[in-house]
Amino acid sequence: MKLDLNSDLGESFGAWTMGHDEAMLDIVTSANIACGFHAGDPLVMHRTMVAAQARSVSIGAHPGFLDLWGFGRRPIQGDRPEEIEKMVIYQIGAAAALAQSLGLRLAHIKAHGALANQAMVDPDLARALARATRAVDRDLIVVVMPGLALEKAALAEGLLVAREVYADRTYDDDGNLTSRKKPGAVIEDADVATQRILAMLDDGAITTTTGKRLPIAVDTICVHGDNTHAVAMAGSLRAALDKAGCTLAPFPSFLRA
Amino acid sequence: MKLDLNSDLGESFGAWTMGHDEAMLDIVTSANIACGFHAGDPLVMHRTMVAAQARSVSIGAHPGFLDLWGFGRRPIQGDRPEEIEKMVIYQIGAAAALAQSLGLRLAHIKAHGALANQAMVDPDLARALARATRAVDRDLIVVVMPGLALEKAALAEGLLVAREVYADRTYDDDGNLTSRKKPGAVIEDADVATQRILAMLDDGAITTTTGKRLPIAVDTICVHGDNTHAVAMAGSLRAALDKAGCTLAPFPSFLRA
Amino acid sequence: MKLDLNSDLGESFGAWTMGHDEAMLDIVTSANIACGFHAGDPLVMHRTMVAAQARSVSIGAHPGFLDLWGFGRRPIQGDRPEEIEKMVIYQIGAAAALAQSLGLRLAHIKAHGALANQAMVDPDLARALARATRAVDRDLIVVVMPGLALEKAALAEGLLVAREVYADRTYDDDGNLTSRKKPGAVIEDADVATQRILAMLDDGAITTTTGKRLPIAVDTICVHGDNTHAVAMAGSLRAALDKAGCTLAPFPSFLRA
Amino acid sequence: MKLDLNSDLGESFGAWTMGHDEAMLDIVTSANIACGFHAGDPLVMHRTMVAAQARSVSIGAHPGFLDLWGFGRRPIQGDRPEEIEKMVIYQIGAAAALAQSLGLRLAHIKAHGALANQAMVDPDLARALARATRAVDRDLIVVVMPGLALEKAALAEGLLVAREVYADRTYDDDGNLTSRKKPGAVIEDADVATQRILAMLDDGAITTTTGKRLPIAVDTICVHGDNTHAVAMAGSLRAALDKAGCTLAPFPSFLRA
Repeated sequence: MKLDLNSDLGESFGAWTMGHDEAMLDIVTSANIACGFHAGDPLVMHRTMVAAQARSVSIGAHPGFLDLWGFGRRPIQGDRPEEIEKMVIYQIGAAAALAQSLGLRLAHIKAHGALANQAMVDPDLARALARATRAVDRDLIVVVMPGLALEKAALAEGLLVAREVYADRTYDDDGNLTSRKKPGAVIEDADVATQRILAMLDDGAITTTTGKRLPIAVDTICVHGDNTHAVAMAGSLRAALDKAGCTLAPFPSFLRA
Repeated sequence: MKLDLNSDLGESFGAWTMGHDEAMLDIVTSANIACGFHAGDPLVMHRTMVAAQARSVSIGAHPGFLDLWGFGRRPIQGDRPEEIEKMVIYQIGAAAALAQSLGLRLAHIKAHGALANQAMVDPDLARALARATRAVDRDLIVVVMPGLALEKAALAEGLLVAREVYADRTYDDDGNLTSRKKPGAVIEDADVATQRILAMLDDGAITTTTGKRLPIAVDTICVHGDNTHAVAMAGSLRAALDKAGCTLAPFPSFLRA
Repeated sequence: MKLDLNSDLGESFGAWTMGHDEAMLDIVTSANIACGFHAGDPLVMHRTMVAAQARSVSIGAHPGFLDLWGFGRRPIQGDRPEEIEKMVIYQIGAAAALAQSLGLRLAHIKAHGALANQAMVDPDLARALARATRAVDRDLIVVVMPGLALEKAALAEGLLVAREVYADRTYDDDGNLTSRKKPGAVIEDADVATQRILAMLDDGAITTTTGKRLPIAVDTICVHGDNTHAVAMAGSLRAALDKAGCTLAPFPSFLRA
Repeated sequence: MKLDLNSDLGESFGAWTMGHDEAMLDIVTSANIACGFHAGDPLVMHRTMVAAQARSVSIGAHPGFLDLWGFGRRPIQGDRPEEIEKMVIYQIGAAAALAQSLGLRLAHIKAHGALANQAMVDPDLARALARATRAVDRDLIVVVMPGLALEKAALAEGLLVAREVYADRTYDDDGNLTSRKKPGAVIEDADVATQRILAMLDDGAITTTTGKRLPIAVDTICVHGDNTHAVAMAGSLRAALDKAGCTLAPFPSFLRA
């Protein structure tokens, strides 16, 4: 079975460092590169792409709201979908040009934070993201949570999608992540997270917090590298997947086949 | 004789309006679109490109320093040329993607404000700009002041250049603009500005403030649209050039021939 | 009868101009000075205060969300009230220091845009604004819409309030402004706006869109200066109020009496 | 002998952390709080002040250029001193209000990065900073490098000054820091740094890189907390000073005596 591991990287900004990008790039197969609106800047983006290239890690754009202070995590209301479409085109284009300057090509797009959350449940916004993606490069693969609005919108635009699950989060019956505010929503134990992922892959389904079974195909697993604990957790998961016989590879290599 | 008129446009930002873009797009043949760092935002960029497209005005990227407060006019020291190179790639890429979403293609790049001023005289920075341009699209034409560092750097990178003069500014003996701080550096009278341009074209040379003659080829004339007086001045100049038998056209149409 | 006219001013930013501040300062008695987060910058703030001082117009802080691109009009979710409290203290403090450097003192605070809208209906946020105000200067008067959450919170903190109505807007039965999305929500005709205000003062009540009568005391009327039409409308209203025998004066002069 | 140790703190921003503020606050006697222009934000400022208050560490404003991307380290040219004056008033005012909300009062001002460097050598800018300080609170003490422009300007405005030396930097004959670009300009060894400071205090003079002796009075020593090595160095220095019989205390306690 072929599988991708992805992580949000390049989230430093100027003099500020965020996360352990080098360590994570040794673990993951795809990197979502922040595009300067919620995090990242042209130098950080370039540096992260160079580090990904050195490890043959596939790269994608990770656009978000223009909100450095809030790290793109705060929902910003009031923009029309057509406006967000331009905001996303801008960010993908900026990342694509930096990739091109290194002889690389963006393989995917994954929306960040509040923008991603909204795109999973708002069909109009989901369509705006899909249109933005297609406008820049119709070969870009859209990372989606299976069964939600963005998957439908991307498929309707004729785009490939990579279906993503989270190793360290639980799921509601609608297929969305359980709110972080609820107890147990975030899984801190690396073994528990790993067992959940292995069960998910084995069963071909997510089991929700109520015990409901949501059949899914998994193309990529999202892991985090914000702190050393998270990096260790990602490393454990990777080792367990290797041992379980999964072939870890960037999703374009098997989704485009 | 073929000639282009260019202007810096798309310099509004969010709720703030700058300049008379629609009126200027009826006059010029090339538009330099601000890229969001010193002015402009994804919506303004898109809107300006749509307005340019409706009038067959050619478009280019107009990158600047990240300095909304200073409108990119303040020299910011301390970045290495390789850093500015990434900053410019980012901006060109963002503009190129928005253009592509409209079925357009950027034809040129013209640096803005303090970044442009530095690139005209600093060979290292000039080379960084030329490399940034070539990295994104080697068909982009670089707008330069004739005889200065950026022209040399662009030619050395194998890029086409468009040689630009200013209708409303006087020149020093080194071919650079006279500082705005000196009396008479800015020409306010439309007739005087027009006569200067006609004499420059006739003579094939700039006459500097000391009377020195600097032979140049002119591909494009920069005009401004910040206020209604400037728009009227640009309109007068266009009418006088038409009357003098010049064919006004976007520079790619004759530089690439 | 004593009455104040207020307007949001100092909303330019760097090279961008917003509104007709000088003209409005000839009309109003209180100026709400943007504090650099949604609009305004230290130079604009200082310049606007100088112009207000020259006309004996009273000044106040006009804090908003950190959102230059959206001009503070976009609701930004996710901050806790204690966080917004600090954000508001920062802005009031910055404005107070600039006022002090001119020998002036801030007389009031009026929240801007989305922050104001949320504070009118969210008791927790309203209390955060009231606490922020009191923390900096307990003599600051809080501009409120009568009957809504911010009025209650300010009074509970022992602060004076100035009750404000809008000349160019209609009201819902809950005392809030009718959404701009509804037809007729914004009154464009100066005479109609003036008649509505005179009736409101005469009746001691707002008449809502359904005809309901909401008794209120009016201390200040908000007028706009975004365009020449708005300035003319504000001028007409002022003339009509003068003619009707109202004494126009900054609200501190009669609220503190 | 009474002496103060100061450090630049509160330089985190939003989701990004900078430095080891808590550890440093256990070592220093004065904290320079970044004011949101080059680093810091209202929440970070508040949190840092709370932590300082818990340890009886004196606080001051640490204003800088509006340049988050460059962390205030890049010289930005082109602003007139009167403009920078307003920019500094704004930042001091914001910090003063947050301090007041905690029942604290700012004791000093220390300019940051490129703004500080320019103020040490540019008399016009130095005067602008001194005027800005006096406009907000004439009891604020200005941290200066002895013998340079800012000291003169602050004294001329009737302000108290705190004379500062750096533990980990060497000095040129003009009393300014040796450029970081020169080898040996930054002292990495804690023992060497400590010995240099003890010699400086003993001798009542800085010894420059050429061996020249510049007599000075030292009120405060600047230490850094960017990384764990720096924190350890600051801790060593503090221990050595305690052992040498110095009384470490906030400079207002002995400068105002």
